[in-house]
Amino acid sequence: MIKYVYDFSEGSSDMKALLGGKGAYLAQMVKEGLPVPSGFTVTTKACLRYLQQEKGFMDALWVDVQAALSRLEERMGKTLGSDSDPLLLSVRSGAPVSMPGMMDTVLNLGLNDETRSALAAMSGNDRFAWDSYRRFIQMFGDVVKGVAGEKFESLLDDVKRENVVTYDNQLGPDALEDLVCRYKTLYKKETGEDFPSDPMVQLKLAVEAVFDSWNTPRAKTYRKIHHMADDMGTAVNVMAMVYGNLGDDSGTGVCFSRNPADGEKKLYGEFLINAQGEDVVAGIRTPQPIAALEGVMPDIYRDLSEKVENLESRFQEMQDIEFTVERGKLYILQTRTGKRSAQAAVKIAVDMANEGLISKKTAIGRVTPDQVERLLHSQIDPGYVPEVLAQGLPASPGAAVGQIVFDPDEAVRLSDKGESVLLVRPETTPDDIHGLYAARGILTSRGGMTSHAAVVARGLGKPCVSGAEDLLIDLEGKRLIIGDRIFSEGDVLTVDGSTGRVIEGSVPLSLPSISGELETILDWSDEVSALQVWANGDTPDDAKRARSFGAKGIGLCRTEHMFMAEDRFPVMQRMVVAKELEERKAALEELRAMQKEDFMGIFREMDGLPVIVRLLDPPLHEFLPRVSELDKRIAQAEESGQDASALRKVKDRAENLREVNPMLGFRGCRLGLVYPEIYEMQIRAIFDAMSELTDVDLKVEIMMPLVQTKREMSILKEMVLSIAGEYEAGSLKYLVGTMIELPRAALRAGELAEDAEFFSFGTNDLTQTCLGLSRDDVEAKFMKDYVEKGVFKLSPFHELDRDGVGELMSIALQRGREVRPDISVGICGEHGGNPESIAFCHSIGLDYVSCSPFRVPVARIAAAWSALGLLK
Amino acid sequence: MIKYVYDFSEGSSDMKALLGGKGAYLAQMVKEGLPVPSGFTVTTKACLRYLQQEKGFMDALWVDVQAALSRLEERMGKTLGSDSDPLLLSVRSGAPVSMPGMMDTVLNLGLNDETRSALAAMSGNDRFAWDSYRRFIQMFGDVVKGVAGEKFESLLDDVKRENVVTYDNQLGPDALEDLVCRYKTLYKKETGEDFPSDPMVQLKLAVEAVFDSWNTPRAKTYRKIHHMADDMGTAVNVMAMVYGNLGDDSGTGVCFSRNPADGEKKLYGEFLINAQGEDVVAGIRTPQPIAALEGVMPDIYRDLSEKVENLESRFQEMQDIEFTVERGKLYILQTRTGKRSAQAAVKIAVDMANEGLISKKTAIGRVTPDQVERLLHSQIDPGYVPEVLAQGLPASPGAAVGQIVFDPDEAVRLSDKGESVLLVRPETTPDDIHGLYAARGILTSRGGMTSHAAVVARGLGKPCVSGAEDLLIDLEGKRLIIGDRIFSEGDVLTVDGSTGRVIEGSVPLSLPSISGELETILDWSDEVSALQVWANGDTPDDAKRARSFGAKGIGLCRTEHMFMAEDRFPVMQRMVVAKELEERKAALEELRAMQKEDFMGIFREMDGLPVIVRLLDPPLHEFLPRVSELDKRIAQAEESGQDASALRKVKDRAENLREVNPMLGFRGCRLGLVYPEIYEMQIRAIFDAMSELTDVDLKVEIMMPLVQTKREMSILKEMVLSIAGEYEAGSLKYLVGTMIELPRAALRAGELAEDAEFFSFGTNDLTQTCLGLSRDDVEAKFMKDYVEKGVFKLSPFHELDRDGVGELMSIALQRGREVRPDISVGICGEHGGNPESIAFCHSIGLDYVSCSPFRVPVARIAAAWSALGLLK
Repeated sequence: MIKYVYDFSEGSSDMKALLGGKGAYLAQMVKEGLPVPSGFTVTTKACLRYLQQEKGFMDALWVDVQAALSRLEERMGKTLGSDSDPLLLSVRSGAPVSMPGMMDTVLNLGLNDETRSALAAMSGNDRFAWDSYRRFIQMFGDVVKGVAGEKFESLLDDVKRENVVTYDNQLGPDALEDLVCRYKTLYKKETGEDFPSDPMVQLKLAVEAVFDSWNTPRAKTYRKIHHMADDMGTAVNVMAMVYGNLGDDSGTGVCFSRNPADGEKKLYGEFLINAQGEDVVAGIRTPQPIAALEGVMPDIYRDLSEKVENLESRFQEMQDIEFTVERGKLYILQTRTGKRSAQAAVKIAVDMANEGLISKKTAIGRVTPDQVERLLHSQIDPGYVPEVLAQGLPASPGAAVGQIVFDPDEAVRLSDKGESVLLVRPETTPDDIHGLYAARGILTSRGGMTSHAAVVARGLGKPCVSGAEDLLIDLEGKRLIIGDRIFSEGDVLTVDGSTGRVIEGSVPLSLPSISGELETILDWSDEVSALQVWANGDTPDDAKRARSFGAKGIGLCRTEHMFMAEDRFPVMQRMVVAKELEERKAALEELRAMQKEDFMGIFREMDGLPVIVRLLDPPLHEFLPRVSELDKRIAQAEESGQDASALRKVKDRAENLREVNPMLGFRGCRLGLVYPEIYEMQIRAIFDAMSELTDVDLKVEIMMPLVQTKREMSILKEMVLSIAGEYEAGSLKYLVGTMIELPRAALRAGELAEDAEFFSFGTNDLTQTCLGLSRDDVEAKFMKDYVEKGVFKLSPFHELDRDGVGELMSIALQRGREVRPDISVGICGEHGGNPESIAFCHSIGLDYVSCSPFRVPVARIAAAWSALGLLK
Repeated sequence: MIKYVYDFSEGSSDMKALLGGKGAYLAQMVKEGLPVPSGFTVTTKACLRYLQQEKGFMDALWVDVQAALSRLEERMGKTLGSDSDPLLLSVRSGAPVSMPGMMDTVLNLGLNDETRSALAAMSGNDRFAWDSYRRFIQMFGDVVKGVAGEKFESLLDDVKRENVVTYDNQLGPDALEDLVCRYKTLYKKETGEDFPSDPMVQLKLAVEAVFDSWNTPRAKTYRKIHHMADDMGTAVNVMAMVYGNLGDDSGTGVCFSRNPADGEKKLYGEFLINAQGEDVVAGIRTPQPIAALEGVMPDIYRDLSEKVENLESRFQEMQDIEFTVERGKLYILQTRTGKRSAQAAVKIAVDMANEGLISKKTAIGRVTPDQVERLLHSQIDPGYVPEVLAQGLPASPGAAVGQIVFDPDEAVRLSDKGESVLLVRPETTPDDIHGLYAARGILTSRGGMTSHAAVVARGLGKPCVSGAEDLLIDLEGKRLIIGDRIFSEGDVLTVDGSTGRVIEGSVPLSLPSISGELETILDWSDEVSALQVWANGDTPDDAKRARSFGAKGIGLCRTEHMFMAEDRFPVMQRMVVAKELEERKAALEELRAMQKEDFMGIFREMDGLPVIVRLLDPPLHEFLPRVSELDKRIAQAEESGQDASALRKVKDRAENLREVNPMLGFRGCRLGLVYPEIYEMQIRAIFDAMSELTDVDLKVEIMMPLVQTKREMSILKEMVLSIAGEYEAGSLKYLVGTMIELPRAALRAGELAEDAEFFSFGTNDLTQTCLGLSRDDVEAKFMKDYVEKGVFKLSPFHELDRDGVGELMSIALQRGREVRPDISVGICGEHGGNPESIAFCHSIGLDYVSCSPFRVPVARIAAAWSALGLLK
């Protein structure tokens, strides 16, 4: 015969699957001799059989429940429904994993008109007894019978109005008795039945309601989204009520074994004398800090402190405990793992490991990648409730405050003067890059999570809200219109890139603090990780930051960003517009000297660590103004009688280079094959830099973008080898490799590996091509719909699409390693900073992930989690 | 000991690999007792050993050659170098496969000052002997020693000028003697050696020159391009000269066993009395038709006819024969398979099969897909040499003559009046579709082989030249500027879409003729094919044409083209612009009735055959004018004081829908999921049409575009099933399937097949995404470079990329059939009409290919070739 009901004394903490989390912990506490009110747990198995609607099961189960109840009555010396010393019960759900949408708590079960009188007599407090009664009816009606809570609240409001009082606790016993009467009438009207006065009926209905709550739509959806099994079921915990409100020798409170805000190892929490748990929540009386308990009830305080510490040691985790003191006796009502801030999580994990309470590996598992991420960005003070003007996409986390400007040049001008500015644009382009650098935060009305603005912002670690579609941006008038509000240049706004909120005025921010413990936990992470974490970075500053955040290399140094600087842009344009090879080569020679300097700076910063330099990737038209812009400039020049022929030449070239689908166009190594002089210049600049840095331990790798045929790869490799031959023989050590960012490249990885000495997955483009999704277009246009309809769990630009892109990666890896077993393979798309995607990279056996310097700490913990099997 | 030299009498036609094609055929003729001048063949194996530069090999070989020469001298009763009755030789290369770049022929080898005198005496013609001598020196100098032919020609011109004559044959013996002297001087100057007077030295040099010509750069490149092995080598044929110019009882000629122009079974060719082979080619005397030989030399004619017929029977192929009559004796100098026109190829193949000479399968192999293609388009008369104004891409084959117009509306207006027009545009868009329909041919200055204009033109079977970059098109001024020429609307041009030429004026065209034999050969093709050939077609007219060309179904009916008609476009625009669901639904109801009519027409035409209807695919902005166009219209409206608010609404929507990469944007089933009402309308229109066509055998299949996740497919299938439920139960029989046009779709084909009942590979888009190539952009911008550099053999939009796209297709096929073994799988991208791509489709086991109706005949023969292993 299967046992469906366990007294608390019969279970233990390893029976979570059967008794639920709450029940198992209660049982363990009883086992350890802690003062837990008596009770029993109806198992999750009972729930599942009940839900199968098996005939007669509930009757059979009820026999067991009644037996457990009898034992409970015996232990407590009280009887359910007794009109002298009635036993009251709390009934709570308790699934193996906590989950929203489940039925919560019914307190004071067992009350009816008779037992209420007995409770009044026992407590010597008639008002308390009526209040408990009306709360019980309300709670039972709401959570067991689904009578809308507002309807009870509305009656409560009526009674308060009639009695001319403001707060619930100002109502006297007569008023509450009146309210109980009205509640019963409401209950009958809504359910068609009298409120059950029989405590056994109350109990049965409550237990069944807990069972049923396992299958509420909300609970089912939650399980679906979180990939949780539907066949766990929930347990039901039935516990004798104890009272903290029986006088000044009673009280109630919650406490944590360590400070959940900052992690300090010190009892933390609050309590109320002569009160029930609900009163703490209701906020009518202000609870006292737990330290004050020492003065009021020194023995209890000592007892509690000791028990809390024991519980923490027992469960090797920070505990969140509910306790009640009934007439000088301490009861522990619940203990569970305490929730904590990101900062606390890190400190607690490191402290506990240092205390020897947990292992380093366990400590790593106590800090989630999300928590590390939260530690690295400015945040709007969690306590502050801001006025939200508009909602966009949370494109790059963190919050920023600044004067709004609409023009990148103006952003630079103000920023140079020391002002904080927010750059506000419909969308951004590479033309705006100097403005993005200068701004504290970015706000766009168009574009998705992976628009230009979003990508650059994340790369820079700057807050960005993108695609805030309610914004009307009047660039000429330099005005931002949101509904009926108009903001002009210089007005101050706050953007919250973690949530997508756009907020009026200056909002107080909490600044990131990277504590010593964070460094410790990340170092421990590196020890267990199989994957290395590298960073994408285009400047010596990026490299420095990456290194300081613990990056083990530069996985992607985009050479095109170097051309965006103010002194280089005109030279670059001259190169692009050049019709003759000689003209182009002249411009390239100028760029060569500039690039050499850039490379020297980066190589020096990364002394001893690898740097992967990617040759020019974007289509050339990105270096020219738009045709419409050029039309304007030409018209202006002509109006003022100037010669517009140079501008016309630029326009001709811009038109000639214009593309319908630039993503699939004339870019990447296609440029390097059609205009070999461009790549040759870049390769020479790299070798020039290497030749000068005789005191640096160089590990330079040259990467070709958008390669997909063996012929492309071999032409490009030959180009590098031949240029290397121009330098002192044998003086240059370097690798040549390729991005894998097209499906064909993944499929042909075997033959690419014949020439390529390393691969780097460009998963941004690989996602775009594998899924036929333009990240510039689809995020704003239909990704939301697609996620809602369940087509994608999340945007595949955010979390790597394992089934499509992931399979291509696996294929490429396998085929590449077959040909070149020691080939180094990493990922440099934005997925390299996404924990779930990192877990996938780990699972297929990549050598490293490379991400924005700002995401390196997140990636380091995620890599460790992956190695520990905590993230899959 | 390996035998390196074969007398003609020792070989046979099955020894091609060893003796080369020419040598093997000569040997076979000797074996059959035909009158072939005696000679011998130095084998391909000898060539290969010679090329390995093996020491002493040539000396060893020469012993064999000398022995063969002695046997030849004995048979001929003449001696090489004899000053009384000298043997002269022709030396010709003869590889197993004919190939340009190989050394051709040296005639009259053996001449020197002494033997020349003997030849003069023997022929009684001193002038002839001098002329033969000077020709020999010229030929030898050019082909054996690489002395540029022009240098000899220049000396010849000098002598003609000095002698004041116009033609070579006006030069007398003295002048020719003078020329021989000058030739020898030139030879010495260029080679540093005296012209070799020793006939044995001449022979050795000639043989070595033939061997060396195997490895000329041109020959090597040719073999590389055509995937031919480098280790075949070439043979050398050494044959005794016979003379057709020894009087009126001598002559020379060429003839074919059937007419190579039209295929008629009748001796065809021409001859000259008292002439050598070269004279026929030189064009100084006009040869007579072969029929005339019957009157001049009746015995020879009868003898020749009989021998030619025997040769055709022997080789089961139409023969191309060189013959010489020397003093009343007929010699066959060469026989080979005759080249023929496309029309002749078809007729000869069918006739020979009907005559029982070859099997039906062999007959199919005698007609290439290219030949079938040539039969189906108007061509510029091959004899006509046009003045080419500009060169573009050969985007859609065939030639067209017409007045140029720059505006699609004007094209329609003129075409309605019965005029032939050519539509000239920088590039075309779906807005121009009515103009494309109306025009005879299309000419664009931008866009590649797969630009909108090119794709539509091929679909319509209309000639198109695209990307003619030298064209300057002044749309406003309605002028076309090419260099310093200006053409205005109404001027007549000719475009040749087979070659990309743009030609001034009206050029004579030869019109396509589909003979009865073509129908026969295609029917035979269908009998042996494993693949069916279906057609893409969007209208009842297309369906009718497809059926008449032998299509076995409609593989792609694009519903969007139906919205382009003049009466529908405004309704479609209203639908696109609608902000509210109700407004959109009202427009959709109007479209539903229109689409129903379209479907009824197509379904009726295809009675009994399958029709795959694809739901709306292109991004919605394709149905709106461009933003720049709308700006213009708004400005116009405002200037004339009209209300522009409706136009503004359209502009807002157009801006909102604008995409950076429309190819990867909001299109395909993404539209159907976000705006289900659009697909619901289309599905209802299909079912409405089916419900009315009670007398038609319906095989309707509904196809979803751009699907790549199981969830998309299942939502869409459910949509169809649920709408079907609205119709009379069980009355509708149909299939639901999907395009496979994204790499992810190919990879996830297994789960897609759970819902999809058929797959159709959209290889245009699959190529774009797998290779990251926008066909609108790359063809013009860098495909030419890429093909030249050997990155792609051909544009992957023209011939399917087997290694990338092809692997995805194989994966999809395998995974789809694993889940649904009877799933029907075809291809509807443009590759479906490309023979090499069809061969690939055959090889992986597709069920059908679907292509433009105009390419159905080509596809049918290609499918048969694939089944017969002739095309791989």
